[in-house]
Amino acid sequence: MANKPIKRSKKTGLPPGTLIHIGEKKTETVRITVFEYGPDGAADRTVKSAKDCVIPKDGNAIRWINVDGLHDVQWMETLGASFDIHPLILEDILNTGQRPKLEEAPGYLFLVLRMLRFEEAAGSIQSEQVSMILGPNYVLSFQEAPGDVFDAVRDRIRTGRGRIRNMGTDYLVYALMDAVVDGYFGILEKLGERVEVLEQEVIGMPDEKTLQKIYALKRALIYLRKSVWPLREVVGGLVRSESERITDATSPYFRDVYDHTIQVIDTVETLRDMVSGLLDIYLSSISNRMNSVMKVLTIIATIFIPLTFIAGVYGMNFEWMPELSWKWAYPAVWGVMGAVFVGMLIYFKKKKWL
Amino acid sequence: MANKPIKRSKKTGLPPGTLIHIGEKKTETVRITVFEYGPDGAADRTVKSAKDCVIPKDGNAIRWINVDGLHDVQWMETLGASFDIHPLILEDILNTGQRPKLEEAPGYLFLVLRMLRFEEAAGSIQSEQVSMILGPNYVLSFQEAPGDVFDAVRDRIRTGRGRIRNMGTDYLVYALMDAVVDGYFGILEKLGERVEVLEQEVIGMPDEKTLQKIYALKRALIYLRKSVWPLREVVGGLVRSESERITDATSPYFRDVYDHTIQVIDTVETLRDMVSGLLDIYLSSISNRMNSVMKVLTIIATIFIPLTFIAGVYGMNFEWMPELSWKWAYPAVWGVMGAVFVGMLIYFKKKKWL
Amino acid sequence: MANKPIKRSKKTGLPPGTLIHIGEKKTETVRITVFEYGPDGAADRTVKSAKDCVIPKDGNAIRWINVDGLHDVQWMETLGASFDIHPLILEDILNTGQRPKLEEAPGYLFLVLRMLRFEEAAGSIQSEQVSMILGPNYVLSFQEAPGDVFDAVRDRIRTGRGRIRNMGTDYLVYALMDAVVDGYFGILEKLGERVEVLEQEVIGMPDEKTLQKIYALKRALIYLRKSVWPLREVVGGLVRSESERITDATSPYFRDVYDHTIQVIDTVETLRDMVSGLLDIYLSSISNRMNSVMKVLTIIATIFIPLTFIAGVYGMNFEWMPELSWKWAYPAVWGVMGAVFVGMLIYFKKKKWL
Amino acid sequence: MANKPIKRSKKTGLPPGTLIHIGEKKTETVRITVFEYGPDGAADRTVKSAKDCVIPKDGNAIRWINVDGLHDVQWMETLGASFDIHPLILEDILNTGQRPKLEEAPGYLFLVLRMLRFEEAAGSIQSEQVSMILGPNYVLSFQEAPGDVFDAVRDRIRTGRGRIRNMGTDYLVYALMDAVVDGYFGILEKLGERVEVLEQEVIGMPDEKTLQKIYALKRALIYLRKSVWPLREVVGGLVRSESERITDATSPYFRDVYDHTIQVIDTVETLRDMVSGLLDIYLSSISNRMNSVMKVLTIIATIFIPLTFIAGVYGMNFEWMPELSWKWAYPAVWGVMGAVFVGMLIYFKKKKWL
Amino acid sequence: MANKPIKRSKKTGLPPGTLIHIGEKKTETVRITVFEYGPDGAADRTVKSAKDCVIPKDGNAIRWINVDGLHDVQWMETLGASFDIHPLILEDILNTGQRPKLEEAPGYLFLVLRMLRFEEAAGSIQSEQVSMILGPNYVLSFQEAPGDVFDAVRDRIRTGRGRIRNMGTDYLVYALMDAVVDGYFGILEKLGERVEVLEQEVIGMPDEKTLQKIYALKRALIYLRKSVWPLREVVGGLVRSESERITDATSPYFRDVYDHTIQVIDTVETLRDMVSGLLDIYLSSISNRMNSVMKVLTIIATIFIPLTFIAGVYGMNFEWMPELSWKWAYPAVWGVMGAVFVGMLIYFKKKKWL
Repeated sequence: MANKPIKRSKKTGLPPGTLIHIGEKKTETVRITVFEYGPDGAADRTVKSAKDCVIPKDGNAIRWINVDGLHDVQWMETLGASFDIHPLILEDILNTGQRPKLEEAPGYLFLVLRMLRFEEAAGSIQSEQVSMILGPNYVLSFQEAPGDVFDAVRDRIRTGRGRIRNMGTDYLVYALMDAVVDGYFGILEKLGERVEVLEQEVIGMPDEKTLQKIYALKRALIYLRKSVWPLREVVGGLVRSESERITDATSPYFRDVYDHTIQVIDTVETLRDMVSGLLDIYLSSISNRMNSVMKVLTIIATIFIPLTFIAGVYGMNFEWMPELSWKWAYPAVWGVMGAVFVGMLIYFKKKKWL
Repeated sequence: MANKPIKRSKKTGLPPGTLIHIGEKKTETVRITVFEYGPDGAADRTVKSAKDCVIPKDGNAIRWINVDGLHDVQWMETLGASFDIHPLILEDILNTGQRPKLEEAPGYLFLVLRMLRFEEAAGSIQSEQVSMILGPNYVLSFQEAPGDVFDAVRDRIRTGRGRIRNMGTDYLVYALMDAVVDGYFGILEKLGERVEVLEQEVIGMPDEKTLQKIYALKRALIYLRKSVWPLREVVGGLVRSESERITDATSPYFRDVYDHTIQVIDTVETLRDMVSGLLDIYLSSISNRMNSVMKVLTIIATIFIPLTFIAGVYGMNFEWMPELSWKWAYPAVWGVMGAVFVGMLIYFKKKKWL
Repeated sequence: MANKPIKRSKKTGLPPGTLIHIGEKKTETVRITVFEYGPDGAADRTVKSAKDCVIPKDGNAIRWINVDGLHDVQWMETLGASFDIHPLILEDILNTGQRPKLEEAPGYLFLVLRMLRFEEAAGSIQSEQVSMILGPNYVLSFQEAPGDVFDAVRDRIRTGRGRIRNMGTDYLVYALMDAVVDGYFGILEKLGERVEVLEQEVIGMPDEKTLQKIYALKRALIYLRKSVWPLREVVGGLVRSESERITDATSPYFRDVYDHTIQVIDTVETLRDMVSGLLDIYLSSISNRMNSVMKVLTIIATIFIPLTFIAGVYGMNFEWMPELSWKWAYPAVWGVMGAVFVGMLIYFKKKKWL
Repeated sequence: MANKPIKRSKKTGLPPGTLIHIGEKKTETVRITVFEYGPDGAADRTVKSAKDCVIPKDGNAIRWINVDGLHDVQWMETLGASFDIHPLILEDILNTGQRPKLEEAPGYLFLVLRMLRFEEAAGSIQSEQVSMILGPNYVLSFQEAPGDVFDAVRDRIRTGRGRIRNMGTDYLVYALMDAVVDGYFGILEKLGERVEVLEQEVIGMPDEKTLQKIYALKRALIYLRKSVWPLREVVGGLVRSESERITDATSPYFRDVYDHTIQVIDTVETLRDMVSGLLDIYLSSISNRMNSVMKVLTIIATIFIPLTFIAGVYGMNFEWMPELSWKWAYPAVWGVMGAVFVGMLIYFKKKKWL
Repeated sequence: MANKPIKRSKKTGLPPGTLIHIGEKKTETVRITVFEYGPDGAADRTVKSAKDCVIPKDGNAIRWINVDGLHDVQWMETLGASFDIHPLILEDILNTGQRPKLEEAPGYLFLVLRMLRFEEAAGSIQSEQVSMILGPNYVLSFQEAPGDVFDAVRDRIRTGRGRIRNMGTDYLVYALMDAVVDGYFGILEKLGERVEVLEQEVIGMPDEKTLQKIYALKRALIYLRKSVWPLREVVGGLVRSESERITDATSPYFRDVYDHTIQVIDTVETLRDMVSGLLDIYLSSISNRMNSVMKVLTIIATIFIPLTFIAGVYGMNFEWMPELSWKWAYPAVWGVMGAVFVGMLIYFKKKKWL
């Protein structure tokens, strides 16, 4: 489950830089796809082994190598060696419980993001770690499993739509980040709709399931928040970065992603406020309802208990009970009972219980 | 609805800088009005097409071009080209879910504000995005729909009242911002009145509607807050700005708007505190009322249940029940019942339940 | 009411710097008093018109001009012209909903404070805006209505007690601020006493009024807090100020006021903590009491309901009910009833409900 | 009471620097003790009047003058004059409601601390203001009443144990501060024990007193917190101080006190968290208990109310009630009643109420 | 117990730098083990007395001296003298209630960490203080008791796995810190599992034990948090440190530990949010259940109370009650009763109580 802390115990005691995949194994086979593109064209292919994807580093084309599946440590070591990646960074890529972060290493930038998916049925958020390495003419991206939000980017590379083929690797990283953050908006829309629906339910006819729905929503928001707050620092770091990997031309684009991130945070906080408001109304609704249940009980009981007492009195079997033989006693008792009944009603009316 | 997160999914996957209107379409036709003024006079007209509003940039007059309606992407592209606006900024203008922000671009400043309107009936806040571009001798403003809070500013330009005609474009932007922030005060007054009314209601005779009113108020405040907090940074940015667009003469005016913004924030926080206080009293009121319902039930039941028991005993049909044939048994039973009754009353009196 | 947001709508749409009095009109006539003093003596008089109070600016004497009542815009304009005050500052003086603030203008400092008064009966805080202008040899102070906390300062000027006559205008402003902050201590004492009283009440015998008192207290504290927090920045600004209006000799005195302000804030926060603690106990008290009401009901009902059932059984009129004709049946039933009674008591004792 | 805000109203309107003792008068007679020590020896004596304690300022010995009792203003004036203390600082010494603070004056440092004592019986914290003046070769300390935590320091001076006699006045001040902070640890231990005891009580058998104990604890923690947070700034100020009064040799010692202060703050916050957790459990316990009371009532009532109804039916006196004359009717009714009884029990069992 | 504040009262009044062991005595005998290693080999042995472990400071080998048990003050003094450690630092090592901290002293760095262990049975966290001194070619580590998380590090030194033998003392300290922080992940996993289990329990069938489990979890999180927050500053301090003890080669490793620490903090905060959410559901569950208990009571009582009243009326013994002798009265009464019964059921159905 996405919401559980990742089990790192496998790792305990090993020397740092030891490559071990930590986290759920979400795919059976590792799949590597390589995109190679430039202003003049673009080609993509799936490679069979890590060695195949190591292309001479000279040349003007930009290469985007995407790896789906992290459990094959051999692959990672080969890749790490070809692109000269620090063992601690390789380790971070394989440990799938990272918070979003940005690290500058000599020659490249390293980024961790979290790609989220909303599970409609369970109402929970599934999370996948996406690590990227932004080099001078290559971008490496690592995902836990196949299936991502990058298809539109791939499409733009293939068709040459937009400016992506004319820009550098930093623009590609921007495009991927943008796709990830756009995915957050989709999740926020769905959560927002759930809040609306729950609002109706809470005010209308809440039942015991409602509480669980509120809690699931709260949990999803906690989780979303945990992914977005550190992202803000990451994007902020890119905007302020003085690395030669980030060109001036791409800077406004990163600022744009930064604005979107802030907007996501804002909306998450607003939804959190609303959900906590929902809980308040829910609790009050329960109190209110209990109140109205109690009122019915009280009204019925307080009206009939005295009447039953009166009936009980004249059901006693004493020999000397003069009222029993009076002619009008029975109607008189009915009269008294009626008077008590009406008196009670008036009292409740005055107390606004009716 | 204003309070729902804007649906950005239309946008997902498109290259950045693609102009698409995101948000509700609030008007059918785009309407552009152009004000042209200087110390000597002012003229305003409605233009038919984006081309008409492009006036040669030289000359001393200040031009304020206001666009109502954002769905016509062609217009925007023409405007953007004439005034040389960055595609990402055009995109921000069209995506109507922005938080207030300030961006400095070469040659102009870009601002996003949110103009709010209080819907009396629903008790909710409607929001409209107002984007402005502050150039050397022109101001562009973009609204989602016709109808705004700027009529007084238009009036001052037409009549020449105040100093607006003698000042630069920064003063015009100040005047527009001031109008927007003044609108917030109007909303705060109405919300403040609602708090007063709800206070009376909560202390007096709260019902189930009260809770919904409190929640609506809370929600409106969450929303207002979301618009005002980032505004503070925007205005603060203008005050501290070293852009050549902001002249020294206008600086105290922006400081004035800054003070107003702080005051709005202050009042919003105070109202939030009060509303959360209201919820506390509301919940306590419900408890209190339930308490008093319970007390009535308890008093009636605890008095009559034992009495009914006594009556029940002497309604038994045993052959050998000597009390039944005693002469004074019946009055004696009444006496015992009376004693129980009075004893109970005294007990309740002592317990302060009566 | 002090706690309502001030209505600024009168102002909407007017050009900035337009002088309009915003807020409640608290006095009929404007009253201006002028103090003129130096090391050698002091004189004070009431002037009839704004012109009278304009005294040549040269000379060594210090002049303190105090204005009670802000609705006469003419006066303000004359004064503003004589002392060369910026229109936006005049506007701030007339808009009586300002937060405390400090502004440095060329030639003088401008301060806004809030003078508070505790209304014993309503338990609410009344607030009056006090604006001051600290010039080289004059101090202007503006109040909404006659009646203030400055009498002791006036007295010290008249009698020459303390060092006030030997110091500059900054010392006078210090003395006035000190008087305002001293007033806060008086209010805190009264609020502190209310907290003590409410503590007793809440633990002893809380009723429905208690909740309203807690809320009134909470509201007063929210209001007090709103006035004091910005004051801290104002006084801090004076302490750190490099304006030529603040001399080194007065600096320790402003530091003293700063310490007092911090102490007020501290106490306000402590009282807020206590009041929110009070609410917790109050709610628990209600629960506790309901609990004990329920226990009595439960004990009486659970004891007598089974007994009444037994009596009911032997009140049935079946022809064949052998027990009815047994000799010892009646005492036996009493015995059974007694046993049930005692058994119940023991059960409740064990459950600690008695 | 320590927890009440000090009444400063006596002071209102007096010129600043007027010496008046504000606060409770905790001792009848002022007692001044003078310690004089150096590497070679130490002597201490009690002096009769303020004049006696004024010793020529030259010489190598260090003099520690401790004053118990602040109500004698004459003494203070004499002392202030001899040691050249600023009137505002004298005023701070006499106003016993100060928060801890540090002030650098020319020639000496001025410190205010709060010495706390835990009142076991009331569960509240008593506070005493300790002011110190750290001069080049003298230390003045002022307490509200005799009795303090400094006996161990006195002892070390007399016996020459530790390095105290070989260090300067800053080390003496350090030793006194350390003693004060050590006292806080003692209080924290006692409060920690109370939390443990209350935990047992809340989980075991909470009664109405429990709530008051929780509140008393909360209040004590609020009070302790109020004394410790500003202390942190004071000690931090000493650590960073560039005053010539603080020598390099003593700096690590102040850092040590700083660490202790942080530790106290940490523990206070942890205890606060725990106490607020206690309140939650307490409230839940009450709910739980009410729940179980309600269950008993419901079970008894829902079982016997229908049975009593059946008995009531056959106690009716209609002439034509065929069942009454049936032979097996009576046992049959018993059978029905038994069936209802058992059915109810099974239902409750299924609902897990039994 | 780990969660109790450490008793420091033993210490009160002693001169600073006096070595006294404060805290629980967790072991009987002090055990010192010495590791000596370099690129070429490694040897380790247990030494009998403090003197044995003092090895000439020259030479290239790195020495790691680990001390288990802090109560033998003599040992500490000998060690302190040999390695020239400041008395205040020795004191900190012996006082086992320190928060994590980092101090730079001339020639070495001093660190305090807290090693945690989760007690499955009690659900509480046990804590042990680990102090380290990082010198040029030696590392001293001090633990309260034998048994730690360092066995994997020892193993790596013995076998030469990883790079530990080729790096300096800072890498050894890194390896030890990493082991401590890895231990936190283990605890977080266990706490995370408990949260999952409690979630099921709270939604399914909460009982009175549930609340205690929630509270125990909350307490463990408070405690964990208290250990981790200051750790962040410690590791951050190491990352930014300009001490010559920290080499550039080790810097990325400390950054790695820093990332882990942030991740621990993040998870702690998330779990805290979830636990407080659990409490909310728990409380609501109780309310819900009480609600359903009340509903059953109300339904049974409101149906049978009026019916019993009717039966009571016809059990009265008046002589003149014409209905009694009517032929169809008895079935008619049954009919009325049936009608009331069905009417009630319909009413409850409409109210959604059934």
